[in-house]
Amino acid sequence: MAKRTITVKGMSCGHCVAAVSEALSKIPGVSDVTVDLTFGTATFSEAAPVDAKVLKDAIEKIGFEFVG
Amino acid sequence: MAKRTITVKGMSCGHCVAAVSEALSKIPGVSDVTVDLTFGTATFSEAAPVDAKVLKDAIEKIGFEFVG
Repeated sequence: MAKRTITVKGMSCGHCVAAVSEALSKIPGVSDVTVDLTFGTATFSEAAPVDAKVLKDAIEKIGFEFVG
Repeated sequence: MAKRTITVKGMSCGHCVAAVSEALSKIPGVSDVTVDLTFGTATFSEAAPVDAKVLKDAIEKIGFEFVG
């Protein structure tokens, strides 16, 4: 179970944090998601490395930008 | 059916707009809610004058400030 931190652009409030947390939590193998609004980052545990495209799709589907 | 515009402080994104719209729409007699994020206002039709306290409670319950 590795920890991973990604940068997400466009979050401005607690609702955004909740939306991003929920979207990431729904990805198979992803757990313990925490989002930092100040830094624009999301940290989570992954059971196995999640493809960046999967993360990007999940983030962009709800209107945010996946920076990496 | 009168039109009324109130000022709501603390909205920063589309999620906030949706939350405020939903909260106001749930008030009996309130309909046609539109929220302007740029100006921080919500406009709606009211079947009869809604007490300011009812509006204030609905807005503050979801974490925003009812200015008036």
